[in-house]
Amino acid sequence: MRKICSVIGSRANYSSIKSALRAIQNHPDLELQVVVTASAVLDRYGSVATLIEEDGFVPDASIFSLIEGETPVTMAKSTALGLLELPTVFSQLKPDVVITVGDRFETMATTLAAVYMNIRLAHTMGGEVSGTVDESIRHAITKFAHIHFPACSDAYERILKLGEREETVHNVGCPRMDLVREYLDSSEIDERELFDDGVGSRFDLREPFLMLSQHPVTTEFGAGESQIQASLEAVEELGMPAIALWPNPDAGSEDIARGMRKYREKYRDSKIHFFKNLPIHLYVKLMQRTACLIGNSSSGIREGAFIGTPVVNVGTRQHARQRGANVIDVSNHKDSIVNAVRQHLTHGAYLQDPIYGDGYAGDRIATVLAGSMPMIQKTITY
Amino acid sequence: MRKICSVIGSRANYSSIKSALRAIQNHPDLELQVVVTASAVLDRYGSVATLIEEDGFVPDASIFSLIEGETPVTMAKSTALGLLELPTVFSQLKPDVVITVGDRFETMATTLAAVYMNIRLAHTMGGEVSGTVDESIRHAITKFAHIHFPACSDAYERILKLGEREETVHNVGCPRMDLVREYLDSSEIDERELFDDGVGSRFDLREPFLMLSQHPVTTEFGAGESQIQASLEAVEELGMPAIALWPNPDAGSEDIARGMRKYREKYRDSKIHFFKNLPIHLYVKLMQRTACLIGNSSSGIREGAFIGTPVVNVGTRQHARQRGANVIDVSNHKDSIVNAVRQHLTHGAYLQDPIYGDGYAGDRIATVLAGSMPMIQKTITY
Amino acid sequence: MRKICSVIGSRANYSSIKSALRAIQNHPDLELQVVVTASAVLDRYGSVATLIEEDGFVPDASIFSLIEGETPVTMAKSTALGLLELPTVFSQLKPDVVITVGDRFETMATTLAAVYMNIRLAHTMGGEVSGTVDESIRHAITKFAHIHFPACSDAYERILKLGEREETVHNVGCPRMDLVREYLDSSEIDERELFDDGVGSRFDLREPFLMLSQHPVTTEFGAGESQIQASLEAVEELGMPAIALWPNPDAGSEDIARGMRKYREKYRDSKIHFFKNLPIHLYVKLMQRTACLIGNSSSGIREGAFIGTPVVNVGTRQHARQRGANVIDVSNHKDSIVNAVRQHLTHGAYLQDPIYGDGYAGDRIATVLAGSMPMIQKTITY
Amino acid sequence: MRKICSVIGSRANYSSIKSALRAIQNHPDLELQVVVTASAVLDRYGSVATLIEEDGFVPDASIFSLIEGETPVTMAKSTALGLLELPTVFSQLKPDVVITVGDRFETMATTLAAVYMNIRLAHTMGGEVSGTVDESIRHAITKFAHIHFPACSDAYERILKLGEREETVHNVGCPRMDLVREYLDSSEIDERELFDDGVGSRFDLREPFLMLSQHPVTTEFGAGESQIQASLEAVEELGMPAIALWPNPDAGSEDIARGMRKYREKYRDSKIHFFKNLPIHLYVKLMQRTACLIGNSSSGIREGAFIGTPVVNVGTRQHARQRGANVIDVSNHKDSIVNAVRQHLTHGAYLQDPIYGDGYAGDRIATVLAGSMPMIQKTITY
Repeated sequence: MRKICSVIGSRANYSSIKSALRAIQNHPDLELQVVVTASAVLDRYGSVATLIEEDGFVPDASIFSLIEGETPVTMAKSTALGLLELPTVFSQLKPDVVITVGDRFETMATTLAAVYMNIRLAHTMGGEVSGTVDESIRHAITKFAHIHFPACSDAYERILKLGEREETVHNVGCPRMDLVREYLDSSEIDERELFDDGVGSRFDLREPFLMLSQHPVTTEFGAGESQIQASLEAVEELGMPAIALWPNPDAGSEDIARGMRKYREKYRDSKIHFFKNLPIHLYVKLMQRTACLIGNSSSGIREGAFIGTPVVNVGTRQHARQRGANVIDVSNHKDSIVNAVRQHLTHGAYLQDPIYGDGYAGDRIATVLAGSMPMIQKTITY
Repeated sequence: MRKICSVIGSRANYSSIKSALRAIQNHPDLELQVVVTASAVLDRYGSVATLIEEDGFVPDASIFSLIEGETPVTMAKSTALGLLELPTVFSQLKPDVVITVGDRFETMATTLAAVYMNIRLAHTMGGEVSGTVDESIRHAITKFAHIHFPACSDAYERILKLGEREETVHNVGCPRMDLVREYLDSSEIDERELFDDGVGSRFDLREPFLMLSQHPVTTEFGAGESQIQASLEAVEELGMPAIALWPNPDAGSEDIARGMRKYREKYRDSKIHFFKNLPIHLYVKLMQRTACLIGNSSSGIREGAFIGTPVVNVGTRQHARQRGANVIDVSNHKDSIVNAVRQHLTHGAYLQDPIYGDGYAGDRIATVLAGSMPMIQKTITY
Repeated sequence: MRKICSVIGSRANYSSIKSALRAIQNHPDLELQVVVTASAVLDRYGSVATLIEEDGFVPDASIFSLIEGETPVTMAKSTALGLLELPTVFSQLKPDVVITVGDRFETMATTLAAVYMNIRLAHTMGGEVSGTVDESIRHAITKFAHIHFPACSDAYERILKLGEREETVHNVGCPRMDLVREYLDSSEIDERELFDDGVGSRFDLREPFLMLSQHPVTTEFGAGESQIQASLEAVEELGMPAIALWPNPDAGSEDIARGMRKYREKYRDSKIHFFKNLPIHLYVKLMQRTACLIGNSSSGIREGAFIGTPVVNVGTRQHARQRGANVIDVSNHKDSIVNAVRQHLTHGAYLQDPIYGDGYAGDRIATVLAGSMPMIQKTITY
Repeated sequence: MRKICSVIGSRANYSSIKSALRAIQNHPDLELQVVVTASAVLDRYGSVATLIEEDGFVPDASIFSLIEGETPVTMAKSTALGLLELPTVFSQLKPDVVITVGDRFETMATTLAAVYMNIRLAHTMGGEVSGTVDESIRHAITKFAHIHFPACSDAYERILKLGEREETVHNVGCPRMDLVREYLDSSEIDERELFDDGVGSRFDLREPFLMLSQHPVTTEFGAGESQIQASLEAVEELGMPAIALWPNPDAGSEDIARGMRKYREKYRDSKIHFFKNLPIHLYVKLMQRTACLIGNSSSGIREGAFIGTPVVNVGTRQHARQRGANVIDVSNHKDSIVNAVRQHLTHGAYLQDPIYGDGYAGDRIATVLAGSMPMIQKTITY
């Protein structure tokens, strides 16, 4: 039995790999190991560890590694803490392959622990261009990884250009679309239950409503408060009811949070309902219904393409991600945001576009991981 | 004044950057900061910290970060310790640019601390191909670095192919050659003084002698003892006096050391003199005189080209480094090593070849660092 | 100049040592060094670092050491992080004496870093009995410390019984009373300004009002929510306006916070105003005016004695602290709390009682620290 | 089944607890857990982990925690590393009781991890007086521990005076004597095999010979080299064959080691045989035969009393340990050492004295640990 160890560091991480975990767990030649760390062990960011267990996965280890502060300093030190403990855990679990997801800062801990210990590293969602330090992290992991699972053709080509051997790169699509596919077919949202979570205004989801999901841009540390305010003021001006999400725990999320708190103090009659976290199945159903999603979340571009959601993408965070016709890019200014939303309102929903996969990435990943393995010692192709 | 912070993790690190430090220190627009860590703070690997101070540099901080054990586990954890403390130090020193050298495991700590804290990263000796995990580290740092100082044309081209912007890549040559140039002109070796250090046989340096410098191959962890034995047995068979150096503190160095101790127990009349460390100026002068350098040290290929030293390069550690006519590559077998050495003995010394620079890299580095700076937010060129 | 380094880990820490810092800074033979760490560097718990700078002290180093989670696991690991970085900082600062305050978990980091590095350790507020793991920490520090500054006679006697040499134990009183003394004489509270901070009801401070300050009991982890609810329900039943404070960042504080949030959701017309932090000068003035202070904060017993505040001390957290006539002890039940408060309302304010000092502890501490030093190598007296 | 977790940090640690581990493993109501850390995981200090497995114990986790350098700084940081990882391990193992041994610096990591996590702590060999920072560590652990297993009557009384409750203190004797008792009855030393290990002179054990076992005194950091030289010169002057042991990995052990290496260079015909480690059964048999044991090892005083070995105890390291008639105390001067040895040579072996137990401590410890447990929340008795 080949042992595949997945290190989960956040809620987003988890939904980006969940369908692959399920496929690995069900594969007769693979044994799944799960390690939970960073924000995934904290109640504060939604109890991901609990969710993982509810889905039938048993964490083999939990590591508290996030240092308080949410500054660039603590981002580095939290990565260090993960890197300090993962070797002990990998020594106990002895995985054949470690699988890491995407590009968050703590994935470097998983990456270095694995490759320094001569364990093969598989990487999902590599090769993409996005701006922010995440892009550097993503490409660096590509240079460490032995097996690549890019999510789109663009990323596949880029990984080859980075000098990785073709037989190690597998354009499987994004595993998150596997979940989206399932959720779109599942039962309806219970509005009452939905609004019992979070705080703020309640409204009828049959009316047109907006969504807002905006995160800190780590290379623009300190600007988060004014950036979220532009978006919130745009929503306010549009006068439509809206759903807003709390930011990721990156460096700078405190700035975004402060901007949101100030907005709430200022507009006490705001039509916005705020969520710390939304279960992915609700989020996806809401993306199917929303008149427009505003912000800088990757979900607008990725899930948005798959679903056909109208998206106003704000600022630099997603600046070079491969995108479909459903996305309008604007800068962090209230008026630009308002205008772009109005343009979408006129157009309505878009056609589905499988840029980021057809909804069966997880199965493909498991099949590759059960196949022949590349050598530990890798070298560039040029 | 632009503040340039150099993090020194080992003796090899230091001699690879020393001429640049001097040029930075002397530049009117630059202020030099020095942080000493990893094996550079330990007596056990030769007191590099002391050397640094003797050369007129004042360490701004010293961090004990090497965890005992010299295994893949401790290599990862030692990197973590560096990454845990460097952010605190960078917060105090507030450098504008952090400069990291080469590809040793602890350079990832310097790299991540800098880029996660939005500090520009300069990287020397990137773009080279060598095999072992060092190659992955080197390319990963390239994907994080803002300013690149490759040491040869081959590496320069490779960094461009990795998607870095041309104006950020500067083929300055290897700063280590700056020292080589100086040492070759300096006064003679005092044999008595030389052999007072280290242990083992003494001999007349005017006679033909061999040199041996062999390090662990991290992706072949556990094989070090038999690898060093092949080389030592070859030296024994050739019957010439020799100088041998202790290995680097990488994962697996304990294996090499054990092989060396066993050899010493077995051949009590061995003609080999063993050094824990050799000052670089002596090492270079010895390379100029030796009949042949055996092992897998990069010095054979790099300094060897500059000096014209006959080199027998053993095993996979340097497998893809750009090399000149002075290098014969062989596998880890006694007979192959013996034959290659004999071939060199017939040929004699080689002509100098400036593949790795003309001896003025340090000045070029300082000039670039004093010039216009690239943006913090970098992205791939394709 | 003898260098005295104070490590500040929390807001409470700081106000417990501030008058001593001032006296050290003003002493001609002493040089003050300040290191800020743990919750003192975090905005989330009130910006203590900023406060320190406003008071004219310059932090020599700031260390982010709190790991998110607020569980027993993270309490231990956060202490580890402090202990990992303080040695590097002490190596830079080279203090002659390190001074640590009280008994919070992170003080063990300061303690071990100092004594393992052969630096003399001074300890304030040792020798007291309180229950919870803090008591064990406090006595353990006594066994490490070279110079003791207990705050009351009871504690002085206990330190001697623990086998410390009489000439190293100085009953100076609590430095926090120095501030209380000053604040009681200072100008009045600006009600408008006061209530602009925090959230909730505003009221006229000339009317009788209650105060509530309740923290988690680490050995009763998990019970915090019901404990705070008993107190909040008592305040609700008494029907008086009140001021409530957010809990310390100990293991379990999230439970207390949750209880407070639920209360706010349930009683939307509550007469309570909630503060994340209150500047000590306001807190003390409010203690002078309040009809009764409820909770388990040490301030009720210590500052309460000095001021004469009626106090209802709830639960086990302060169970064995030396106390005056102003304190009524009750269990964590609403009715007991209500009855005790009513008893105080009948009695009114109490006479001042200098159990915890006369308000000049800081000067005494500086004088001792400038005097002859005990030997590094200590041993028990029996 | 009550789970008892023993954290082993060094070879000395292990032989001090081995008989208790065996008794716990054999007890029907107890389940043994073993965690190996600090020098116990390193080959360099003798492979204790291997020894543990040979004895039939299965380590549940191994933690590399020693930071290279052997200075006061690394002593503190290595403790921090243990404290950083033990909480994760304890979370996985969920022990009911953690048992820690003695007073080495890394025992503070075990102690804090346990008590901060509300796990009961048992402590062996507390209450003793010895000088050096170890004494402070030992008493501090007493103030944290819930169950005490002192090794002698003196220590038992001292723990009570420190304010611990009588029913939690059990004078069981030293578990190391259990092994001594067994080894004294076991088969003879194979001289050839003995001297195949280590380096240096070989001799006939039927002739009178000396033993030397000397460790750094942490509060006299820097003095180790001259201290070991006094002892070695004394042995040289006495002209008898001798067995010498390598020092413990405390801060300062490098000084001792350097002194030993210099001695070996100077006296190439020395009659001393040097061992990095001696298996305890050989060490004990040698103590039974030696004409005199010189140094500052606790074994001279403890095992020495049980066996009746003539001991010259050098310097301050053991200054206040309860001792029998077999010990002569001298300062770190060659002449004093020589004179004291000669006095012992005249007297010969001493009678056995059970100050440190009768050889059945392990069984008593297991019985106590299977009985009723004290409360987690402890408080001082006065």
